[in-house]
Amino acid sequence: MRPEDPAARIDPELALREERRGRRVGDRYVRVIHPFAERFKRQAAGHLVASERVLQPTGPFGRAVELVRRLAIGRRVATEHELQERVGPIKGLAVFASDNISSSAYASEEIMRVLVLAGLGALALTMPTTIVIVAVMAIVVISYQQTIRAYPNGGGSFVVASENLGRGPGLVAAAAMLTDYVLTVAVSIAAGVAALTSVFPALFEQRVVLGVGFVVVLWLGNMRGIRESANVFAIPTYVYLVAMYGLLAFGIWQAVTGSLPEYSPPPAWLEEHGAEGLGLLLILRAFASGSVALTGTEAVSNGVPAFRPPETKNAGLVLILMGTFFASIFLGISFLSSQLGLVPDPDEQETVISQLARTLVGAGTPYHYLIQISTALLLVLAANTAFVAFPMLAGILGKERFLPRQFQYRGDRLAYSVGIVVLALLASVLIVIFEGSVTSLIPLYTVGVFMAFTLSQAGMVRHWWKLRDEKRGWRWRAALNGAGAVATGLVAVIVGVAKFALGAWMVLLLIPFLIGLMWAIERHYRSVEHALAVAPGEPLPPVRDPLVIVPISRLDRPALQALAYARSISNEVTAVHVNDDRDEIEVMRREWEARAGPVELVILESPYRALMAPLLAYIDAIDQMDPARPITVVLSELVPRHFWEYPLHNQSALRLKLRLFLRPNTVVIDVPYHLPPSA
Amino acid sequence: MRPEDPAARIDPELALREERRGRRVGDRYVRVIHPFAERFKRQAAGHLVASERVLQPTGPFGRAVELVRRLAIGRRVATEHELQERVGPIKGLAVFASDNISSSAYASEEIMRVLVLAGLGALALTMPTTIVIVAVMAIVVISYQQTIRAYPNGGGSFVVASENLGRGPGLVAAAAMLTDYVLTVAVSIAAGVAALTSVFPALFEQRVVLGVGFVVVLWLGNMRGIRESANVFAIPTYVYLVAMYGLLAFGIWQAVTGSLPEYSPPPAWLEEHGAEGLGLLLILRAFASGSVALTGTEAVSNGVPAFRPPETKNAGLVLILMGTFFASIFLGISFLSSQLGLVPDPDEQETVISQLARTLVGAGTPYHYLIQISTALLLVLAANTAFVAFPMLAGILGKERFLPRQFQYRGDRLAYSVGIVVLALLASVLIVIFEGSVTSLIPLYTVGVFMAFTLSQAGMVRHWWKLRDEKRGWRWRAALNGAGAVATGLVAVIVGVAKFALGAWMVLLLIPFLIGLMWAIERHYRSVEHALAVAPGEPLPPVRDPLVIVPISRLDRPALQALAYARSISNEVTAVHVNDDRDEIEVMRREWEARAGPVELVILESPYRALMAPLLAYIDAIDQMDPARPITVVLSELVPRHFWEYPLHNQSALRLKLRLFLRPNTVVIDVPYHLPPSA
Repeated sequence: MRPEDPAARIDPELALREERRGRRVGDRYVRVIHPFAERFKRQAAGHLVASERVLQPTGPFGRAVELVRRLAIGRRVATEHELQERVGPIKGLAVFASDNISSSAYASEEIMRVLVLAGLGALALTMPTTIVIVAVMAIVVISYQQTIRAYPNGGGSFVVASENLGRGPGLVAAAAMLTDYVLTVAVSIAAGVAALTSVFPALFEQRVVLGVGFVVVLWLGNMRGIRESANVFAIPTYVYLVAMYGLLAFGIWQAVTGSLPEYSPPPAWLEEHGAEGLGLLLILRAFASGSVALTGTEAVSNGVPAFRPPETKNAGLVLILMGTFFASIFLGISFLSSQLGLVPDPDEQETVISQLARTLVGAGTPYHYLIQISTALLLVLAANTAFVAFPMLAGILGKERFLPRQFQYRGDRLAYSVGIVVLALLASVLIVIFEGSVTSLIPLYTVGVFMAFTLSQAGMVRHWWKLRDEKRGWRWRAALNGAGAVATGLVAVIVGVAKFALGAWMVLLLIPFLIGLMWAIERHYRSVEHALAVAPGEPLPPVRDPLVIVPISRLDRPALQALAYARSISNEVTAVHVNDDRDEIEVMRREWEARAGPVELVILESPYRALMAPLLAYIDAIDQMDPARPITVVLSELVPRHFWEYPLHNQSALRLKLRLFLRPNTVVIDVPYHLPPSA
Repeated sequence: MRPEDPAARIDPELALREERRGRRVGDRYVRVIHPFAERFKRQAAGHLVASERVLQPTGPFGRAVELVRRLAIGRRVATEHELQERVGPIKGLAVFASDNISSSAYASEEIMRVLVLAGLGALALTMPTTIVIVAVMAIVVISYQQTIRAYPNGGGSFVVASENLGRGPGLVAAAAMLTDYVLTVAVSIAAGVAALTSVFPALFEQRVVLGVGFVVVLWLGNMRGIRESANVFAIPTYVYLVAMYGLLAFGIWQAVTGSLPEYSPPPAWLEEHGAEGLGLLLILRAFASGSVALTGTEAVSNGVPAFRPPETKNAGLVLILMGTFFASIFLGISFLSSQLGLVPDPDEQETVISQLARTLVGAGTPYHYLIQISTALLLVLAANTAFVAFPMLAGILGKERFLPRQFQYRGDRLAYSVGIVVLALLASVLIVIFEGSVTSLIPLYTVGVFMAFTLSQAGMVRHWWKLRDEKRGWRWRAALNGAGAVATGLVAVIVGVAKFALGAWMVLLLIPFLIGLMWAIERHYRSVEHALAVAPGEPLPPVRDPLVIVPISRLDRPALQALAYARSISNEVTAVHVNDDRDEIEVMRREWEARAGPVELVILESPYRALMAPLLAYIDAIDQMDPARPITVVLSELVPRHFWEYPLHNQSALRLKLRLFLRPNTVVIDVPYHLPPSA
């Protein structure tokens, strides 16, 4: 069959082997194997530890792929070598607060975009709306201080809501957060691109391509596992803070001294005028748009264990700093925009921050570029927060069986590869569908976040209630979290109502769908697990010689190999030949007598030319004769030399396999026949 | 394992069985099986004939599909019941000549479309061009008379060219004819739709949809096998002939009596004017466009065996009639168009025939509708000729190994299903790409046909030369076919040159590509056949007990079933568990000792979390110890209850199977575990 000399294949590593065959120990067959020392380390009897060598490809093509892979995402990391790099308040602010702080880059603008629909005069409401949102933020920050202390191992809303309110609310929070993370990536990257195109207008036409490009960069970066990158993170966050404070201080000084420069609105504005009335709904919509400012607040309480001890204190400090920085920048931008009379660009070609900067420091000055580029960088890094959080949450949900198991799998660098890929794909799809427009994405964004906030805070109220006997001051703690829950719940309702027709309906449909899906997945996994579990006293399944059928179309080498294999596994082998041509049947019968050895041949003549149906009917007939015994079908499959030759072979084997796979009590064996390379 | 009582599954049909088990006859195991009499008939020992019953689906869903299938394409036909319905000259003309005669519906128009580019005056050349083409046609018809006599079993150009000129020219002819058949369908249907939209202008916007709709009708009709349909064919052919002769006679009478009515050109024409000079190239292009008239000539010589005896005489008569009918209609249309001063509609909204009819008998009169509808029907039926010829040629090429084997397969109604589907798809793609425009498709059409004609006629010259010693008059016969070859060869060159830039280049690229592909497919099949053939004296492959490996991820029912199966086929079974978590490894080890029975467990710890690589390295190690023995990997696969549950399971098993399939000396066994329906 395989004419080559076995000795020619022996490897120098074989020197390590001690025995060629296994031996019997009592009634058990034991293979004593001493595999190559470079590939496995013997840990104990029957316990080998694979070295990184087993992952090294051997062929030249494989090695090239491996090289590219390593350049792109780096060396593999063993599970035990996982580093949980801890951060102090300074790095912590950069890592966990960038998402929230970056919202200041578009929050004021989104308020103004809604208000201006009622005309320039309505922009006077920008500042009051900002103040209300900052007040809500203050409540949320204080409320989350308690979550940090109560959940030093990380208090994401899924954890807090599941533990205190039960599975249902936990799943609502999980679905809301998954949706939210996808939107965080899409919105932050769209806003980052907008910051860039404000100073490089030539890029405006390419904003979708640019956005997807940033997603790809984040995808690759996260496949590396950007854990060690807090230093890189710190830079744009602090550059943004310094540059923004400089700009705001300069502007406020001008405002105080009455020396604010003249503002020239974007050209598109001059053609459009506000037409809607300034009703309550419009004000609520403005508030709903601006409350995007609170997104990202949860990152800190999620990440408590990543802080250096004292963890809760450091995390609490970062949360306060984050709120303070964010609120002051947000207020500053809204204040100066009102003072200058800025109007948002209806074409979304120039952001409000860019208008502010160019009015204060001059268009195209280095400081204008500094503001725009640091804003863009910060926004892309904010998207990265979601790239860390989404795969982790999906991994937890995978472990709890609410998502497919694959989400649990951690790649060569310990990153949750599947979650990262799924997030990158979904965010790219959003950027393409919404053509990279922040304003179109915003209505979808905030509903989910505030639902999760509300559930998390409500869970905290329950948490304190449960601890009422052991914890002093549980009343005021519960009251604080209760205030947070009421405030965020109100915002969730306002956002849902005010933005419903603009896109929030999609999220309000998606979240229940996701919950249903997760529930169905969990039910399925549990039911399967239950069905497959082996009861302690249950007898082992019986060992019975299989009845073997070998479909034969031609009497060639693959067929003879399949027959030899079939005879090696059972004494009850029948070959079956299906054909509609009597002459060919006669030829087969004669060749069979001459060549095939001691196996019975059954010929199924098929006048209607069907191949599958007679074979399946024959298998049924055999099965009926002895239903308890498994039926085994041995198929020979030709392995062509090149993949493009596949369509020329094995079509019948493939169809038969698909049909038999669904047949109970049937096992299919593929005996591949590899074409010799010379032929 | 399967707790149900085997007796509960016994079928009443089981009463027919005689023995439960096989018996040994000499050294051979023989299973004496008496399957259900309704499904199989015993022909001889070990030779069963399947009845149509085996094809009947049993489930309700399957029965519904079967019902729809039968309504759409009819009852299954057994191979032996194939009817070769013979036709006489009257039906024969309808079946085999409709393709060619239908060309008269657009040949004049395509000449005029080219000439008019040089202005209205150039249309005076329509009649002379028509006469030259008719002369070429006469040569071809006479030349093909000889092919009919020489090849009473069917003389398609592939057969004639291969037999007389060799494989290379045969393949050129085959590639040309395959291309041509696809274009026949696309052009005829586009022209048929144009005939309809000329009288129903509202349909013009939908011409692509209509065209694809006709392709679908032909596809379904041919899956039925429209052999019995000559009667249906006869009607539109003769209606077209009668209606057209009536129109032409009326018109010629008016022309003779000088009473031709006034012609009003289509509105679009008034805005456009011919701008090109009337050079030789333009005249050649007009000739090339008009020579589309000769397409379909080969159908008769291809179909000789389908005629009633005397076959050659009947076929020869039909060929002459076809040429006469076609030529007279073609000349008549060109003559009257010149007399009336018709101009083709640049928007392709109204055909020249429709303009002719409405001018002679009045727009919207019943006779106008009769002309247009019978033209449309004839053209669709002409497309059907290709639906018969293409799959047959592809089947022959499949049998000769020049195309994938699947093209040989004949479906339930003896139609070559794969060829029919491929033709329908390709023609639909052409109609969509060329937006259903006859004029855009024409440049691609004729090159292939004339190449095939030339090769076929040249082959005939060679044929007579080979018979020079036995056949009297071989010289003049060879001269006749030589004249045909020269005439068609000239046309092929003219078409190739004049239409090169307009689209002929695509065909001139496609044909060599197809030839290369067919040659490569044949080489591949032959080389594989050679490599797989078993030499007469060669010993049978040895029968050796396989070394069995069972990868185990959890110790559940599917795993235990796989282990039981593995033990049933070999005494040398090793279970392998790959994991990166030491705690889980410890749990597995303890459960194993408690539950797994007499099989050795090897644990492969994988610190880098890879599943495949350590397993493959371990298999390599075992392989190195005894390279001559096959290695068998038994995988348990969960069969979920619903197809949408697949993504939740078996991902690792699938990946492992793909990897192992390419590994030499390795056999993979799938042991499916079917979830009990209750769980």
